[in-house]
Amino acid sequence: MPITRAPGARFIKDPRDVRLEDRVIRGDAEGDVGLLGVPWDGAVGGRPGARFAPSRVRGFLYSMPLNINASIVDFGDVDVVIGDHGETMRRTREAAAQALKRVKELLVIGGDNSVSHPVFQALNEMEEEVGYILIDAHPDIRTVTEGLTSGLAIRMIREANPSMPITVVGYRPHSNPRYLMDEARQLNVRIITMNEAEEVGVKGVAAQLAEAYRGRRVYLSLDMDAVDPAFAPGVNSPSPGGFTSREVIDLVSRLSKELRPRVFDVVEVTPLVDVADQTSNLAAAVLMNAMWPQGDAQ
Amino acid sequence: MPITRAPGARFIKDPRDVRLEDRVIRGDAEGDVGLLGVPWDGAVGGRPGARFAPSRVRGFLYSMPLNINASIVDFGDVDVVIGDHGETMRRTREAAAQALKRVKELLVIGGDNSVSHPVFQALNEMEEEVGYILIDAHPDIRTVTEGLTSGLAIRMIREANPSMPITVVGYRPHSNPRYLMDEARQLNVRIITMNEAEEVGVKGVAAQLAEAYRGRRVYLSLDMDAVDPAFAPGVNSPSPGGFTSREVIDLVSRLSKELRPRVFDVVEVTPLVDVADQTSNLAAAVLMNAMWPQGDAQ
Amino acid sequence: MPITRAPGARFIKDPRDVRLEDRVIRGDAEGDVGLLGVPWDGAVGGRPGARFAPSRVRGFLYSMPLNINASIVDFGDVDVVIGDHGETMRRTREAAAQALKRVKELLVIGGDNSVSHPVFQALNEMEEEVGYILIDAHPDIRTVTEGLTSGLAIRMIREANPSMPITVVGYRPHSNPRYLMDEARQLNVRIITMNEAEEVGVKGVAAQLAEAYRGRRVYLSLDMDAVDPAFAPGVNSPSPGGFTSREVIDLVSRLSKELRPRVFDVVEVTPLVDVADQTSNLAAAVLMNAMWPQGDAQ
Amino acid sequence: MPITRAPGARFIKDPRDVRLEDRVIRGDAEGDVGLLGVPWDGAVGGRPGARFAPSRVRGFLYSMPLNINASIVDFGDVDVVIGDHGETMRRTREAAAQALKRVKELLVIGGDNSVSHPVFQALNEMEEEVGYILIDAHPDIRTVTEGLTSGLAIRMIREANPSMPITVVGYRPHSNPRYLMDEARQLNVRIITMNEAEEVGVKGVAAQLAEAYRGRRVYLSLDMDAVDPAFAPGVNSPSPGGFTSREVIDLVSRLSKELRPRVFDVVEVTPLVDVADQTSNLAAAVLMNAMWPQGDAQ
Amino acid sequence: MPITRAPGARFIKDPRDVRLEDRVIRGDAEGDVGLLGVPWDGAVGGRPGARFAPSRVRGFLYSMPLNINASIVDFGDVDVVIGDHGETMRRTREAAAQALKRVKELLVIGGDNSVSHPVFQALNEMEEEVGYILIDAHPDIRTVTEGLTSGLAIRMIREANPSMPITVVGYRPHSNPRYLMDEARQLNVRIITMNEAEEVGVKGVAAQLAEAYRGRRVYLSLDMDAVDPAFAPGVNSPSPGGFTSREVIDLVSRLSKELRPRVFDVVEVTPLVDVADQTSNLAAAVLMNAMWPQGDAQ
Amino acid sequence: MPITRAPGARFIKDPRDVRLEDRVIRGDAEGDVGLLGVPWDGAVGGRPGARFAPSRVRGFLYSMPLNINASIVDFGDVDVVIGDHGETMRRTREAAAQALKRVKELLVIGGDNSVSHPVFQALNEMEEEVGYILIDAHPDIRTVTEGLTSGLAIRMIREANPSMPITVVGYRPHSNPRYLMDEARQLNVRIITMNEAEEVGVKGVAAQLAEAYRGRRVYLSLDMDAVDPAFAPGVNSPSPGGFTSREVIDLVSRLSKELRPRVFDVVEVTPLVDVADQTSNLAAAVLMNAMWPQGDAQ
Ligand SMILES: [Mn+2]
Ligand SMILES: [Mn+2]
Ligand SMILES: [Mn+2]
Ligand SMILES: [Mn+2]
Ligand SMILES: [Mn+2]
Ligand SMILES: [Mn+2]
Ligand SMILES: [Mn+2]
Ligand SMILES: [Mn+2]
Ligand SMILES: [Mn+2]
Ligand SMILES: [Mn+2]
Ligand SMILES: [Mn+2]
Ligand SMILES: [Mn+2]
Repeated sequence: MPITRAPGARFIKDPRDVRLEDRVIRGDAEGDVGLLGVPWDGAVGGRPGARFAPSRVRGFLYSMPLNINASIVDFGDVDVVIGDHGETMRRTREAAAQALKRVKELLVIGGDNSVSHPVFQALNEMEEEVGYILIDAHPDIRTVTEGLTSGLAIRMIREANPSMPITVVGYRPHSNPRYLMDEARQLNVRIITMNEAEEVGVKGVAAQLAEAYRGRRVYLSLDMDAVDPAFAPGVNSPSPGGFTSREVIDLVSRLSKELRPRVFDVVEVTPLVDVADQTSNLAAAVLMNAMWPQGDAQ
Repeated sequence: MPITRAPGARFIKDPRDVRLEDRVIRGDAEGDVGLLGVPWDGAVGGRPGARFAPSRVRGFLYSMPLNINASIVDFGDVDVVIGDHGETMRRTREAAAQALKRVKELLVIGGDNSVSHPVFQALNEMEEEVGYILIDAHPDIRTVTEGLTSGLAIRMIREANPSMPITVVGYRPHSNPRYLMDEARQLNVRIITMNEAEEVGVKGVAAQLAEAYRGRRVYLSLDMDAVDPAFAPGVNSPSPGGFTSREVIDLVSRLSKELRPRVFDVVEVTPLVDVADQTSNLAAAVLMNAMWPQGDAQ
Repeated sequence: MPITRAPGARFIKDPRDVRLEDRVIRGDAEGDVGLLGVPWDGAVGGRPGARFAPSRVRGFLYSMPLNINASIVDFGDVDVVIGDHGETMRRTREAAAQALKRVKELLVIGGDNSVSHPVFQALNEMEEEVGYILIDAHPDIRTVTEGLTSGLAIRMIREANPSMPITVVGYRPHSNPRYLMDEARQLNVRIITMNEAEEVGVKGVAAQLAEAYRGRRVYLSLDMDAVDPAFAPGVNSPSPGGFTSREVIDLVSRLSKELRPRVFDVVEVTPLVDVADQTSNLAAAVLMNAMWPQGDAQ
Repeated sequence: MPITRAPGARFIKDPRDVRLEDRVIRGDAEGDVGLLGVPWDGAVGGRPGARFAPSRVRGFLYSMPLNINASIVDFGDVDVVIGDHGETMRRTREAAAQALKRVKELLVIGGDNSVSHPVFQALNEMEEEVGYILIDAHPDIRTVTEGLTSGLAIRMIREANPSMPITVVGYRPHSNPRYLMDEARQLNVRIITMNEAEEVGVKGVAAQLAEAYRGRRVYLSLDMDAVDPAFAPGVNSPSPGGFTSREVIDLVSRLSKELRPRVFDVVEVTPLVDVADQTSNLAAAVLMNAMWPQGDAQ
Repeated sequence: MPITRAPGARFIKDPRDVRLEDRVIRGDAEGDVGLLGVPWDGAVGGRPGARFAPSRVRGFLYSMPLNINASIVDFGDVDVVIGDHGETMRRTREAAAQALKRVKELLVIGGDNSVSHPVFQALNEMEEEVGYILIDAHPDIRTVTEGLTSGLAIRMIREANPSMPITVVGYRPHSNPRYLMDEARQLNVRIITMNEAEEVGVKGVAAQLAEAYRGRRVYLSLDMDAVDPAFAPGVNSPSPGGFTSREVIDLVSRLSKELRPRVFDVVEVTPLVDVADQTSNLAAAVLMNAMWPQGDAQ
Repeated sequence: MPITRAPGARFIKDPRDVRLEDRVIRGDAEGDVGLLGVPWDGAVGGRPGARFAPSRVRGFLYSMPLNINASIVDFGDVDVVIGDHGETMRRTREAAAQALKRVKELLVIGGDNSVSHPVFQALNEMEEEVGYILIDAHPDIRTVTEGLTSGLAIRMIREANPSMPITVVGYRPHSNPRYLMDEARQLNVRIITMNEAEEVGVKGVAAQLAEAYRGRRVYLSLDMDAVDPAFAPGVNSPSPGGFTSREVIDLVSRLSKELRPRVFDVVEVTPLVDVADQTSNLAAAVLMNAMWPQGDAQ
């Protein structure tokens, strides 16, 4: 029936307003940019709900204008297994490995921060001279006596690659036990605190990192709690005094252009505790600004 | 990639839990039950937002178990034109007419109450001996000096068919100017007030209506503001003292079984002002209970 | 400019839809029904905010259709003094006394339950053979060692009139320390628990009270926490297991018709903690159903 | 400093208002009634967050008046292990076993519905002639191909005890795939649907169950989604058309008085998605009404 | 009654705290500054609700201190016609034309961005050498195949005046299809992107515009979505990465002082989706800072 | 029972993550830093609810890592008397006096801004050469004709000490009647407006104040409405255009390090109107950054 349209279609009839959803290739294909969701919050020892981020963030991302000449493939979500962290991580690693073969840049929508580990493992297996940058209020190098937590993702990533450079940007002293600074030194994880970032500015941080990671196959990761709760209230563990929306967009944008990361992930978006979907909307905007490939797609 | 799944897939792996979304036929086809969205709130002189009801209510409806042996066709949404009420109504009428040819029962998800008029016109053109039942806190027979309002849908429907029986169930005196009672008499619209409904009970009301409409091709309509705001806060014009969720489910369920309506619509769901999506969830449950065809589908 | 209208005017152009706001007489005048706000929450030892109830409830009440032939006078709000409970109560008593001289029925919008005391004092001074009925989850006969609380309004009212009948309807055992039952006996306050009310039904309760208070000048008071939190979440002290919206409207409506109370008040509406203004909307509907005078107004 | 008080103390100074928090014995002790929290939502395949129920529900429960002559022991929360369902269930079983030795009635605050299984195992080991009653919108007898779900708790409980009577009250057809009805028959699980419960009323259901379970050591369980979303929006899987607050309080109250259950649990309260804490408040009221022991405590 | 006061009066008794509401002249009069509401969201192809902005923003604006020596006239709201965009626009143009004759500066509270067009038409007819500045995340120069949208306001304004300078400040690439940049060039609309604005700072932007528009009769327009969603969540189409509250206040303040605009409008405030009224409160603060006339009023 | 833990314990098992709650000394003791809550909103002439700030802010503060070598004593809350401002202020003064004898730095959690006065009185009595710095959108030097308001705290503090330097940082012209600027001059209260603060930056303000107050026993006070509503929506009287979270943390942090204040208070946090607890969380972070003593505690 020509007077009907697909459920949920746009109200504005602007044919030149091409959105990501109009061009995205769904399923298993090759392309410039890949999307992979990991709907998993099984390692959260605080407020769960990040399992809903892939669908909510996609909602915003899909409705954004597609302004780059790149083909975009959406591989769907990892088929997680409720209650089985190990199996879910294995599947995540396998899915990431397969995805990385098909695209120049893989965008991953977590999930809690624990999902970065298997994705990194896939990258680490495939590439030489890798490097890791995490934008986060926390360094994620906790030690725990039992149970899971997304607060030790970097510790596991360091174990997976003992020598590559790792930097965490956005550390807030009032949200981290001080022993973590010692751990960071021992694990050779460089910390750029929020204060230091403010001192040199986002441009300065981006320039330093571009310099330090030049030539590496970079894994760039954004834990949304790096952003101030005013801009990103929907996270497991909000920490006052973070980046503004413009700063985080600018930082990721510069690093993407300079370093052309193989993987960019956004983790810890937690729609269950979000306010007016601000965090999902911002995450989508950051993802859009993280796409660096310039393909031949039209 | 077999370890991935479609975005937004279910977390529970229960193959025997067949949902409506697993069986629904999308697009233009014949079947037992049809779905049509009318994302339109252009006639609302209060709180708009009903345009989002088709997608939000479908979200709940699609994820409900499909427990009937009937084929279900989703015709999508009417392709509304922002700012053009007349054209949108014409398209709604046309879409309804085409849909009614293809299914035994057409389920319409509004939209504000004005969308019932063109759907009724389509039914009226096609069938003899029709009848109309509206469950609503208001009789929708206002007169206005200019502009649109969903508050005169029944007046227009009466004009489209001057002789059929029309009943409105759920009238609240404190939410309607008293002149409407006189209008109802003049327009030969039967009013069953909330108090009268309480007196005889939902069973009693259903029995009366089954008796009165026996043999007719019935248009059954539910303005969600008939339901109490505790159960359905997400409507344009909430009126305290309405039906409970169990009553409205029971009433629609009985009328559907008894009268096998050709059309059932749910209107005035307004997600923008809803609380925890309670109204959309209830609307979906009512729709599910309104399906009477017993087809050969499995 | 004829193409402009007053700020906030209605969008629906229905001249026959006469609302309370179209007819109300503002200020100091005689009439059938009077309105008085007491924006005071100074005695609340829990969640304050009832000070905003007069303006929020009026918002809903004013926009309701005026379906009775009675003149309605709005005396405005008592000019409360932040931090001075005594002076505010004195002004409330004086305002109520003046208002009671001008109208047949005075409707008071609290404020916390402490405002009923000075209003009752005004009534008590003016009338013989008074009687008091409170619909409340709590009997409000606490004893405290220091400080104010709205939880002893009935104790003070009993002190003001040691002999009249007092009944509290809606008592929930799980929300009241049991010593209050002994106090009620000593103070000769009759308690009708929620369970007892359910047993005989709202009709039964109304009939009993109509019988018991026949011939008296009645003060009818509704603490909105008598209503279940699903229907009235916006109160200081919500207690699960209360009246439904229909029950409370019916109960007040019957008592108003039968007993023609000199005063009806609604207290403890707390907009700061309300959900989608459900409590204010319901309070307005109850107020509208509490108006019994049939004047000569048109 | 005598002019200070404990943080968060009550504002009303009523020494005779004895609350549960004033009398509860914290830690490991004997008593009439025991409290045990199981902050676990690891089996939820929908919206997690029930892990916060024990602390939120306790907040309401502790501040309720203590009107029974029974000693109450709070054993604290099971020391759950994030990511390890098996270990957490083992600890829950062990904690329940120890608790059951110390009290006449054990009140458990879940957690998702999966926590009922280990608690039942503890009871089952200790007592002869047990029986199980679940108030729930769902029968929780799903079969799944992989992963956990709280939707098969009853299946596991049936496996733990193949012969005892099991009844599920509150089934909604629109929220359950129909194969579950067959499963129920095969598993010898009696289903009382919402419609059947409405037919005979809560009193009738309670009388039937009292008759059927007389003499047994009963495990009474309340999945809060049995209650209508208007009264209990804060659950993982809300299903329209459920019990009212008064019905659920009455049903649990009658069953507790009649059957003196050894265990009563409240599960699936999910504060992360609650509205104005209505679900936690109602859960606390139900818990209070479930206490049947009449000890010698004062 | 002297102990009462007007409903909703202030609680703080500070006679020297003169608010706008204490001085505003309501109705049709001459003055320094004029206020006109346009409660219209009929062109919104996304989330409607801007129709409520005039009353909500006025609420905040009226309660702000009046610190300027200027007479302020509130002309009320345009008498919009639900469903009739054309007629509403005609009335808006006429109302604006009449208002502009009476005041030095006209402040307009939208409404969606489409209302700027008729207001501009009125200005354009009356004045020579006009100029247009829009602060907006979007350039509003879409082309559509059918229906209305507030996304082409600037296109219509350009048609109304093909030669005047038009500048749009605040463009976000991730929220606009790239064809709009080409359109902007063709339409001779200057775009200052958010990045460019950040580069030179708000002071720099203001200085550039002051220079470019010196001597012109300026129409200054603020689409609130230019502001970041953290500061202005209540808009139809939020775009992350926008101006802060201080920046937008500063930018409008500087432009008002420098250019003395004949019209300043605030559009797209959408209270239905706002969070804690932050957007309305900010809009009011901007309006207050936009008043430049220094009259002789006291 | 070893497999249980205290209600509400942390889910992450990280023994090296020492939180304030693990070390705080509760009750009456000596230490480096003291905590005192004043749950009082009796002087608020706007939106009350600050009485809940001490418990809510403590919730966040207690769960923050303790990274300083200082002993921390929590004296509890002042035992306020509902309805008796005078007595509550007397108790606050006495409690503060006793607390100040026991600790180097006293942290006070209001309560509305009126609670600063009695705390200052205690300091003023005890110390010579005091000084007062208030970070606030308002100077709090109103004059009123009757009733209380937190808007004249500084006037009372000036009366208590006519000669010390007083500075208010953060003044917004659009939120204050202009007579207050004259009052400030007469009362010798220095105002640093938001614009001036922006001009020199937070660093500059801190440097100026460090210079001006060097050698004094400083009372540093933060009215949370100084912060922008995007970062601190939960205040009585939000004023757009305020400090960011980073700025307020930085400003308090610098002043604390430089001036080692004897008292630091945070007032006007109003949880009843907060959004996602952002204001309480930020207040806790500021409190943590305000602790300057370096004790011998471990
Ligand atoms: Mn992280
Ligand atoms: Mn983090
Ligand atoms: Mn209707
Ligand atoms: Mn209606
Ligand atoms: Mn009361
Ligand atoms: Mn009460
Ligand atoms: Mn269950
Ligand atoms: Mn269930
Ligand atoms: Mn625009
Ligand atoms: Mn825009
Ligand atoms: Mn202040
Ligand atoms: Mn202030």
